[in-house]
Amino acid sequence: MLLALTLAGVFVFGLSGGLAAVQARLDVFGVVVLAVVVGLAGGVARDVLIGVPPQAVRDWRYMAVAGGAGAVTFLAHPLLGRLQRPILILDAAGLALLSVTGARIALDHHVGAFEAVILGAITGIGGGVLRDILVREIPVVLREGLYAIPALLGATIAVVGGNTDWAIVGAVVCFAVRLAGIVFGLNAPRAGRERSSERSRVPEP
Amino acid sequence: MLLALTLAGVFVFGLSGGLAAVQARLDVFGVVVLAVVVGLAGGVARDVLIGVPPQAVRDWRYMAVAGGAGAVTFLAHPLLGRLQRPILILDAAGLALLSVTGARIALDHHVGAFEAVILGAITGIGGGVLRDILVREIPVVLREGLYAIPALLGATIAVVGGNTDWAIVGAVVCFAVRLAGIVFGLNAPRAGRERSSERSRVPEP
Amino acid sequence: MLLALTLAGVFVFGLSGGLAAVQARLDVFGVVVLAVVVGLAGGVARDVLIGVPPQAVRDWRYMAVAGGAGAVTFLAHPLLGRLQRPILILDAAGLALLSVTGARIALDHHVGAFEAVILGAITGIGGGVLRDILVREIPVVLREGLYAIPALLGATIAVVGGNTDWAIVGAVVCFAVRLAGIVFGLNAPRAGRERSSERSRVPEP
Repeated sequence: MLLALTLAGVFVFGLSGGLAAVQARLDVFGVVVLAVVVGLAGGVARDVLIGVPPQAVRDWRYMAVAGGAGAVTFLAHPLLGRLQRPILILDAAGLALLSVTGARIALDHHVGAFEAVILGAITGIGGGVLRDILVREIPVVLREGLYAIPALLGATIAVVGGNTDWAIVGAVVCFAVRLAGIVFGLNAPRAGRERSSERSRVPEP
Repeated sequence: MLLALTLAGVFVFGLSGGLAAVQARLDVFGVVVLAVVVGLAGGVARDVLIGVPPQAVRDWRYMAVAGGAGAVTFLAHPLLGRLQRPILILDAAGLALLSVTGARIALDHHVGAFEAVILGAITGIGGGVLRDILVREIPVVLREGLYAIPALLGATIAVVGGNTDWAIVGAVVCFAVRLAGIVFGLNAPRAGRERSSERSRVPEP
Repeated sequence: MLLALTLAGVFVFGLSGGLAAVQARLDVFGVVVLAVVVGLAGGVARDVLIGVPPQAVRDWRYMAVAGGAGAVTFLAHPLLGRLQRPILILDAAGLALLSVTGARIALDHHVGAFEAVILGAITGIGGGVLRDILVREIPVVLREGLYAIPALLGATIAVVGGNTDWAIVGAVVCFAVRLAGIVFGLNAPRAGRERSSERSRVPEP
């Protein structure tokens, strides 16, 4: 069950990575590679931080699902593109699924509750960060108001609730809060009037 | 004592990350997230390379200090902005503090002296690299003449000296050398006249 | 023998990193740092994923070879620049050498055959990804048609063949396939007509 939810998260994150590659005009190999990287990055980061061999490298099903998401994107991207803001919606679904399953998997490795929440959020956030870095965007976790908060919220519900049912509740809550942020364009306040041209630099010689 | 120096380094690096986020026009969540990532990245990289669970994920004080630096930046950024080249100065302080404490922490995990110096420098350099990647700058360690050298110098003094007093000496030396580089705009020679447009590429189809 | 091939791979990847730094107009320290990072990144990623302390941090020869590649680039870059598409050619040689040696080293740590192939490809691909991120290019593995495929092919030959002779065959096959991709400008099909301006975003407030 946990595995099914995790692979679902890998798949939708893979779709978001594949779509980002399509929009960056990459070819079919680039689409598949970016789907794999985005689908698996968060889980690999979690396993490395826990100190266990990454499941995504050991178990071929992870790579197959993420690569499959890339192939699906390449074939079906006009369909996916008909979603409103397709990358953000798929990203939100991946965030929700991987934050809660990431937290549960962390608990299975006997880490503390605080750590499990943090590792769950890292699992959910990691893929999108890498996707945006690789196509040279500022990562969505930095650009968007409600992103890290719903990930931490979903992971907390999954950890405190204590079983897979609560993980599903956590995923629904995370997805709903994240969607609200997207739909209503909620953005938290920004600081000041500083301009990027004021950025401190050593003068050119 | 070592913990206090480390948390001070996390805090000033967090301020530099927060300021970079303010200048990239991110909202308050982006400021806090970037402060956390920049404050903790170097130490997490060190612990992963040593092969121990990252302290910054286990111990909530690291995250609290780095997140607090983000909040302080958001509230006090006009004040911080009055520093000359604020990001570079704060970055230099973080580089100095984390290079020496990173080297001492590495020694506590029974690595060799050479390795401890390298791991110390990675601890000091890591946060700034990630900050610059995330706001899409070329990392300061690549742009600036005196950056890796003072980090290696400070870490070497901390390792060879053999106690916390020497770590403080190392931090002061590192900070002084780095500041000299900033203030005098020291830049090492550049290579040749090649232009970036000569960069080899497969021709577009 | 495996060590010699690995260090040769580190050296040519270091040259590609150094050249990228020269073309980004970095100074001599930036050239050396980028050479070191690019030369060592893939192997460090492999060792972290296996869960062993990275050889490149423990053994000073790795850093010396990669740093030496940076120094050579700085002094000899007009010579290297006379190659057709120098970064891509050096990158192809590094890809070939590190994919096969990475796979053999992974096997030495008793991982499964599937995992060894994946870890070998990661060793070969990692350096180029980091190089391109750090100088703000889209990574070559995403831009170019034949990149991950030859890496996986070479690693598979090295794993299935079962000794160092087959590793050399794998490296030659990988290099030849990759070169064919560069020389003939082979690019796989791209998806659709979507434009990057259609990229979903939350509207600016």
